[in-house]
Amino acid sequence: VSESGAPPEPVRRLEIVTIGDELLLGFTIDTNGAFLGRTLAAAGIEIVRRTTVGDGAADITRAVGDALERTGAVITTGGLGPTSDDATKPAIARLFGRDMRMDETIANDLRARWTARGWPGTLPTSNLQQAMIPESATILANRHGSAPGIWLEDDRGRWVAMLPGVPREMRGMLADTLLPRIAGKSDIDRPVIRSLTLRTTGIGESSLADLLGELASGIPGTTLAFLPGTAGVDLRVTVRGVPLPEATSRLENAAALLRERANPHVYGADDADLAAVVLDACRIQGFTLAVAESCTGGMLGARITAVPGSSDVFVGGVIAYADAIKSSYLAVPGAMLQEHGAVSEDVARAMASGVRAVTGADIGIAITGVAGPGGGSADKPVGTVCWAVDMRQTVKSRRRAMVGDRGEIRERSAQAALELVRRMLMAG
Amino acid sequence: VSESGAPPEPVRRLEIVTIGDELLLGFTIDTNGAFLGRTLAAAGIEIVRRTTVGDGAADITRAVGDALERTGAVITTGGLGPTSDDATKPAIARLFGRDMRMDETIANDLRARWTARGWPGTLPTSNLQQAMIPESATILANRHGSAPGIWLEDDRGRWVAMLPGVPREMRGMLADTLLPRIAGKSDIDRPVIRSLTLRTTGIGESSLADLLGELASGIPGTTLAFLPGTAGVDLRVTVRGVPLPEATSRLENAAALLRERANPHVYGADDADLAAVVLDACRIQGFTLAVAESCTGGMLGARITAVPGSSDVFVGGVIAYADAIKSSYLAVPGAMLQEHGAVSEDVARAMASGVRAVTGADIGIAITGVAGPGGGSADKPVGTVCWAVDMRQTVKSRRRAMVGDRGEIRERSAQAALELVRRMLMAG
Repeated sequence: VSESGAPPEPVRRLEIVTIGDELLLGFTIDTNGAFLGRTLAAAGIEIVRRTTVGDGAADITRAVGDALERTGAVITTGGLGPTSDDATKPAIARLFGRDMRMDETIANDLRARWTARGWPGTLPTSNLQQAMIPESATILANRHGSAPGIWLEDDRGRWVAMLPGVPREMRGMLADTLLPRIAGKSDIDRPVIRSLTLRTTGIGESSLADLLGELASGIPGTTLAFLPGTAGVDLRVTVRGVPLPEATSRLENAAALLRERANPHVYGADDADLAAVVLDACRIQGFTLAVAESCTGGMLGARITAVPGSSDVFVGGVIAYADAIKSSYLAVPGAMLQEHGAVSEDVARAMASGVRAVTGADIGIAITGVAGPGGGSADKPVGTVCWAVDMRQTVKSRRRAMVGDRGEIRERSAQAALELVRRMLMAG
Repeated sequence: VSESGAPPEPVRRLEIVTIGDELLLGFTIDTNGAFLGRTLAAAGIEIVRRTTVGDGAADITRAVGDALERTGAVITTGGLGPTSDDATKPAIARLFGRDMRMDETIANDLRARWTARGWPGTLPTSNLQQAMIPESATILANRHGSAPGIWLEDDRGRWVAMLPGVPREMRGMLADTLLPRIAGKSDIDRPVIRSLTLRTTGIGESSLADLLGELASGIPGTTLAFLPGTAGVDLRVTVRGVPLPEATSRLENAAALLRERANPHVYGADDADLAAVVLDACRIQGFTLAVAESCTGGMLGARITAVPGSSDVFVGGVIAYADAIKSSYLAVPGAMLQEHGAVSEDVARAMASGVRAVTGADIGIAITGVAGPGGGSADKPVGTVCWAVDMRQTVKSRRRAMVGDRGEIRERSAQAALELVRRMLMAG
């Protein structure tokens, strides 16, 4: 048993088996499966099937056995911990006709950890189960937790790699140990699957498709997906089955074509956050920012301050949920509230200018709307939202009917207000 | 083809097959699988395996065929939409030896929708694929979208139910149509799996275990899981394999024992939200609420206003991110900021009282802290958070070292501040 040993041939197809009653019962959502999918696909390894079974030994043996027959290469997650539920190792050892034995190195390591942490008495016997491993197994070091991973291989080269179920440990062990082992690092010609996302906002899916014209049905050598959400419509371009340099060049080419056509709706790529984009633009122009929020109740401020380092641009603001706060804090005239109602472009503009006046910020952003489920009227149904930006006395406002539930309407509102700031900053 | 027809025998074991390249590649996390697990387990149906395959017809046929052989009862999700990728129906029809044919009722319905929405021209041929169904299939009505579900059954009583992949449509169809069909509503003796969660906050996992004493290792006939998160530690009690009335009584008994021991840390059950609990308690006592937020930047206000109907209690507040706003808006003395620093219990108390004074609310809640990743010092490392509540001039404050990243520290801070309000309201 060692960490060295001849590495196997690089694999191109494998199966995943995720193990745990928690997963089958739906108490835990299987994020490990998705993470493995993304990471392995990016390394050029195709996952052909993912199976989830409970903690029963017979179910584990059967599912892993089926998977081994189909591809000869299987990664499992879960069932390596110290509790008696964790049947993964013996169930898979049985499949390979191996007995279990105590690994003294692991056992000593567990005992040393117990003592080093100052826990009382000696290591309980149940914890020692983590030191039981199948004969002739290779141990995959776990720098992120106590349960080591296990690599088991037969004389036909078929293998199973067992990783822990705790996402942080699984991810660490995949990157540290398993991926270098199976991916064959130097294989530049290996076909990969890579994606790139352009993020748009302020335009609907069908209008965006119209704008893209013939590009909407796909750019040769790539596929295009429209992914609508509360932040806007993401455009995901994917390339499959070509080596990395070719994949990268196809993605860059496609992104350039899409950007040219969809500009100015594109605010960033991949996991870009519009709040961070706006903060960066403010920083460059030396502008400070304040908010005045009614229906979003602080959500816009929370989004802006979720970005580390926002304090050099963002000064704060007012949550003006009650109309009295709109009047007293932001100097929205009572007559305006009476005449136009709190949900109006006039009030949004007054709020934006009001928060600038009281905070001294260069830019004031205001949102007022009917997030529902109650409070709608024939004139202003649930989803009616008005927002405004005062940028050094240039004031713009918008009104729109947002779709979705209370949470979605609020998220769309915060995004729309940020987009108005971005457009005004771009216009200079 | 009809919605009536003799319903099958109630099933007790089945398999799930979720279909889509998106799932295998990890672009989409499989929340449908978890939702089906929870819902079916609660209805006494055991899921023995869940399989995920891509959009390829051969993979779908093989995975569904394997599952049918094991249990004779399979639910699939995904692959019913109008695009050419959606191979589910023909792949499964092949398995049952059925041809595909056009269902004129569905086709007419699709055409009518197209026209009713005022879309140009006539329904594209690609959309008509949704009207192609296997011979002798039963249609499962979809009130939540355009693609109907399909029920296919052979003469041995083995069946496959195909549901759409869009979560909202899948959930609706499961509740409306499929669950009543397979669960055998009147079978009161059917063994079920049921859970109940008690939500605690303000106490760590190991202290909570100490407090629970012998209950921590489980109450007879139930299992207990400790689930720590930023909202606190949830205690999940589960009962398996007994009929519903017995399961309900065991859960109620266990919950009563745990509540007795863990009180006053328990703020609610199941998906209770502490913000909603606090709003209810304020409403009963006729109190209004305002916030003054520094490091949370609006997150506490956003949480409170996420609760529908919060406007009769919550008036608003101040996002005092910059120290200048703390002084000018909330009247925090400059000397106090200088002497104790913005992150101090003194400043938190002054902020809470300040926001009460300017808004006229009965209760003011204030948070100030170092959310990181920058801004820490030896004295006040990242994670140092102070919060205070002024309830009609009774002022309490706390200081704690929070763990986690910026987002987690902010979430824990908002929860801790709400918990202080709850405790003070309980004390009267």
